[in-house]
Amino acid sequence: MAEAPLFQRLCIIGPGLVGSSILRVARERGDIAASLVASARSEHTLERVRALGIADVVEGDAARAVQGCDGVILCVPVGAYAGVMAHIAPHLAPGCILSDVGSTKGSVLRDLGPLLPEGVHLVPAHPMAGTEHSGPDAGFAELFRGRWCIVTPPPGADPEAVARVRALWERAGSMIETMDAATHDKVVAIVSHLPHLIAFTICGTADDLAQETREAVLRFAASGFRDFTRIAASDVDMWRDIFLNNREAVLEMLARLTEDAQAFGRAIRWGEAGFIEDRIRRGRKIRRSLIELKQA
Amino acid sequence: MAEAPLFQRLCIIGPGLVGSSILRVARERGDIAASLVASARSEHTLERVRALGIADVVEGDAARAVQGCDGVILCVPVGAYAGVMAHIAPHLAPGCILSDVGSTKGSVLRDLGPLLPEGVHLVPAHPMAGTEHSGPDAGFAELFRGRWCIVTPPPGADPEAVARVRALWERAGSMIETMDAATHDKVVAIVSHLPHLIAFTICGTADDLAQETREAVLRFAASGFRDFTRIAASDVDMWRDIFLNNREAVLEMLARLTEDAQAFGRAIRWGEAGFIEDRIRRGRKIRRSLIELKQA
Repeated sequence: MAEAPLFQRLCIIGPGLVGSSILRVARERGDIAASLVASARSEHTLERVRALGIADVVEGDAARAVQGCDGVILCVPVGAYAGVMAHIAPHLAPGCILSDVGSTKGSVLRDLGPLLPEGVHLVPAHPMAGTEHSGPDAGFAELFRGRWCIVTPPPGADPEAVARVRALWERAGSMIETMDAATHDKVVAIVSHLPHLIAFTICGTADDLAQETREAVLRFAASGFRDFTRIAASDVDMWRDIFLNNREAVLEMLARLTEDAQAFGRAIRWGEAGFIEDRIRRGRKIRRSLIELKQA
Repeated sequence: MAEAPLFQRLCIIGPGLVGSSILRVARERGDIAASLVASARSEHTLERVRALGIADVVEGDAARAVQGCDGVILCVPVGAYAGVMAHIAPHLAPGCILSDVGSTKGSVLRDLGPLLPEGVHLVPAHPMAGTEHSGPDAGFAELFRGRWCIVTPPPGADPEAVARVRALWERAGSMIETMDAATHDKVVAIVSHLPHLIAFTICGTADDLAQETREAVLRFAASGFRDFTRIAASDVDMWRDIFLNNREAVLEMLARLTEDAQAFGRAIRWGEAGFIEDRIRRGRKIRRSLIELKQA
């Protein structure tokens, strides 16, 4: 612990899976924040955080929680940002760095930007890490280790504030990439949001099948379908908000995928073996690229 | 090894991942076949089977390979069945049991049924096991252990022949289910073929994106997309044949999924939070069912 803490008083609003994992890694290392504040709306979450002992201060009112903090990280579903910001904005200290961990980044600028007090630095970030579990008990200090964190500073962001947010994620074990919010939103739409949309949908499609077939589907899900259901086991509020807050990019990618899937279906109908082989080969090629990049 | 072998002379046509795994488990146990014959078209495959020492007889000509066998299992891509059958049918011994391991079963009745000699028993089967690797070196004796094998005897099949095929898969460690070919084809269309179609397609959709986005996609594939590419890394010939030979069921399931995905997209466009939450909850529910059934 040679380095001085990046923040004197760091507030996590929404200590669920991701928020509580930040608290844990900060507590474990000591060089992320000298003091940790956690704020949640639900009494149950507050109790769990107290019992886990992962924050120095546990506070139900977010406006009181952020007072005197030089770092605040929103870890609530992105649909709740505007409401939380309206509540905390008047209480953010000058010089404070406001960040978040949301999966959509254009919506952060839209919802937080207009309410940002003079002298408060907005540096959104998106740690690409998660599990199928949620809540403060699901977190762990190693969640971010070896995973990417995308930082999306708005134009004209304070370089020193950006550097501190990057340093936080580096100390949490992440690899950092910087890009603008619009590019981020397109990339995650195809990498993550569209696969989740399809996974949720195909589970529903199976659930609509005639009773007999549906039972067999569940019995034989091991080969393919199972991988889809793993990502379909995600948090309802978080994913509803992601879809609603990355609307344009998700709809564009869904339209592209639908066109491509229909072209595939047409090739099956008309027995176009060459087209089908080409599509399968592209899948294998991308898979190989991922293995080379150590992402698989 | 208390039990007598189920077959005196068992021929595997196409000793790839699945075929060579049957040879391995048969060799290891001794109670599946007294003697093992392997046949392949490619000299390279024949050499590998010889080098691995997993068959008693290695024979390039399938017609010669099946002579004197009381069991023959086709382990080639389903698109090759009609050609192989035309070649071997005159050489199948009376009383021989002809089975296969293909992923589509209606096509087996269509392609093998008309050429079946009097006194030869057709008992198709589909072991639901595989990896992303292929070829004789990829096989292993434990491939089928704890996995389902669906047996689809045609109407009027000889009960003793069906019992022997079931016993083979039981001894290989599989759980057995019996159903008719049409039900099988619908179930695997939604459980496996459609997920693969989508996985192949989404890799292509990503590959078509503008250069800059595509590079970022590969870099950040870890969360969701990665699961899709795992199943997209499959064998080209096998999957082309599956799509072409389960056309009706795959197209029906694709049409259902497309409708459902478009309804999801419409809900995103119009901000229908309730609809989206309902779809996410159904995904979670199916996931939970799979966990209860130990399929996840």
